[in-house]
Amino acid sequence: MNRLRFAPIPAGLPATVPFTGPETLERRSGAPFRARLGANENGFGPSPRAIRAMADAAAGVWKYGDPDNHDLRHALATHHGIAPENIMLGEGIDGLLGLLVRLTVSPGDRVVTSDGAYPTFNYHVAGFGGQLVKVPYRDDAEDPDALIRAADEVGARLVYLANPDNPMGSWHPGHRIRAMLDNLPEPGLLVLDEAYAEFAPDDAIPRIDPNDDRAIRFRTFSKAYGMAGARIGYAIGPAELIAGFDRIRNHFGINRIAQAGALAALQDQDWLNHIRAEVAAARARIAEIADENGLTALPSATNFVAIDCRRDGAFARALLDALAVRGIFARMPGVAPMDRCIRVSCGPAEELDAFAGALPAALRAIL
Amino acid sequence: MNRLRFAPIPAGLPATVPFTGPETLERRSGAPFRARLGANENGFGPSPRAIRAMADAAAGVWKYGDPDNHDLRHALATHHGIAPENIMLGEGIDGLLGLLVRLTVSPGDRVVTSDGAYPTFNYHVAGFGGQLVKVPYRDDAEDPDALIRAADEVGARLVYLANPDNPMGSWHPGHRIRAMLDNLPEPGLLVLDEAYAEFAPDDAIPRIDPNDDRAIRFRTFSKAYGMAGARIGYAIGPAELIAGFDRIRNHFGINRIAQAGALAALQDQDWLNHIRAEVAAARARIAEIADENGLTALPSATNFVAIDCRRDGAFARALLDALAVRGIFARMPGVAPMDRCIRVSCGPAEELDAFAGALPAALRAIL
Repeated sequence: MNRLRFAPIPAGLPATVPFTGPETLERRSGAPFRARLGANENGFGPSPRAIRAMADAAAGVWKYGDPDNHDLRHALATHHGIAPENIMLGEGIDGLLGLLVRLTVSPGDRVVTSDGAYPTFNYHVAGFGGQLVKVPYRDDAEDPDALIRAADEVGARLVYLANPDNPMGSWHPGHRIRAMLDNLPEPGLLVLDEAYAEFAPDDAIPRIDPNDDRAIRFRTFSKAYGMAGARIGYAIGPAELIAGFDRIRNHFGINRIAQAGALAALQDQDWLNHIRAEVAAARARIAEIADENGLTALPSATNFVAIDCRRDGAFARALLDALAVRGIFARMPGVAPMDRCIRVSCGPAEELDAFAGALPAALRAIL
Repeated sequence: MNRLRFAPIPAGLPATVPFTGPETLERRSGAPFRARLGANENGFGPSPRAIRAMADAAAGVWKYGDPDNHDLRHALATHHGIAPENIMLGEGIDGLLGLLVRLTVSPGDRVVTSDGAYPTFNYHVAGFGGQLVKVPYRDDAEDPDALIRAADEVGARLVYLANPDNPMGSWHPGHRIRAMLDNLPEPGLLVLDEAYAEFAPDDAIPRIDPNDDRAIRFRTFSKAYGMAGARIGYAIGPAELIAGFDRIRNHFGINRIAQAGALAALQDQDWLNHIRAEVAAARARIAEIADENGLTALPSATNFVAIDCRRDGAFARALLDALAVRGIFARMPGVAPMDRCIRVSCGPAEELDAFAGALPAALRAIL
């Protein structure tokens, strides 16, 4: 089997998958979910203008997308009040995180994250031979002080923090993120995942000079803009680092329809505000449902809510399974003590009604 | 700048881009091209059924795509008469080639290709630290014997061959590809790029057991299926190798609209046959245009034609520039002696008419 051997790094990787998709679960059970509330997708959907732009772009998909992502990159620069040279488009934050790790992490380099934070980041770090160092959450939030201490101890190359956090929905004020930067030891680079930024209170989003060499931040069209399946996101960071992506990225990698949709979505900030209101209402409704069932919704600055089931991970897992057989797709944090929670995405009223209808029976079935 | 240093392999890479997109050229010149004939895109467009499927999928793009690509993978398995375990979907052949190199090539490993063959493959090999060994084309075709000899001499891990070839449009009969396999020294794996397979004569496509451990082949929806901007292609190979991609790929990386479009395109083989006829007619028309201008079209089994300008690379480059200022986007091979040619993609009659109209003046301008 000499021809089929893998290179040393991939040879040491597991064949596991960061997340099982809902379609896979549906195929296993033989029935579609009534409520798709597990992947923090935005069931309120993209802007009607974005939908129209994507539908209109379908016939032109015989053309490759613009490898410079010129129009979208310039529109984003205007939107954020920064230079286009500080922005790199990519195939979602997932794709960009992989490129960042490849660009900056040598085999054996230490990378600090929180135990229970975004598994796909860890997947990329392991995938390029980085050594993960994990610190615990504190009070259901990623712990900036512990992250910085660990970075100092191990000489971390990258330090990952999602603000707001996934899977807990917690967030830090911008000044705590800025304080992290001030204390971040060289050669550390803060990987600031802001996938949920559009849902967060304004003061959770720090002002950072895009050319600050201590941070790179990530945004996406997958969440607030409702375009998860389009696979388009972007990094904001120092021009020199951003230019580095051009050495390794798939220049023609972004779907042309996604480019058109993202541009239209960005130009429809009214829809974004509508989504924010829908998500806020859905968070309140999820909290109400939790309360009615003797559970506790944790505060959230995202489009999902972690519901504290006040028991252990086995209980939460059983509850998820009991919900799944009742047609409700949700997920849960993977690590104790956060795995006492289930995580429910904000979705349209019908789906939350289905969740509300299924939860009491699911709880009865496992109690 | 310690925080911005790159890992050793990307640090040694140039910031160059494999291809400049036509949009970039249009922005530079300030005028749109009248004929987009440079990127071997399929200007006849995707199946109307695929267009409809993509337009219909736009509103549902709030969902991530199925990471298993289940429906499309199974449909492809049926189409090719092989098992789904022998197929890996990816973000175009470009994306899949990158994953293959990452999966199989260790820094310093030798990889054999032809001097002038697909630059994006070379980009990935360099990008993961592989050492490229190039052999010359022979009679405007990749040279299987020279590739095998070089593989033997350097102990190549991968041997790349496109059949039919890009940029020359030439092809080998399937039995020559099978003979390459029989002579391929361990640990060599044949990377058989069949991006243009649907345009080739039947006997150019060898029968290879998908579990044969000596080859992995690549197909795409970008060319004959007219969906370059969708970014979706697939690899066919041994199940053990195919499964390896799951260790490193972006599981949610394929656009959901592209999944829907590709499935519909595959199910419309009548449209594919229509495209084959249009492309055959366009090849004949391009040959006619070449002939009328004292140039020679080379035989092609693809959706493009290399036109021999019978002078050197500088002349062909000047001709391309002279065509560009007249609104015609074409490209040319990058390496002598093939760079005596320009490469013109098959497109609709209006675009070929524009090419026919511009070519005499472009030639006069540089002669």
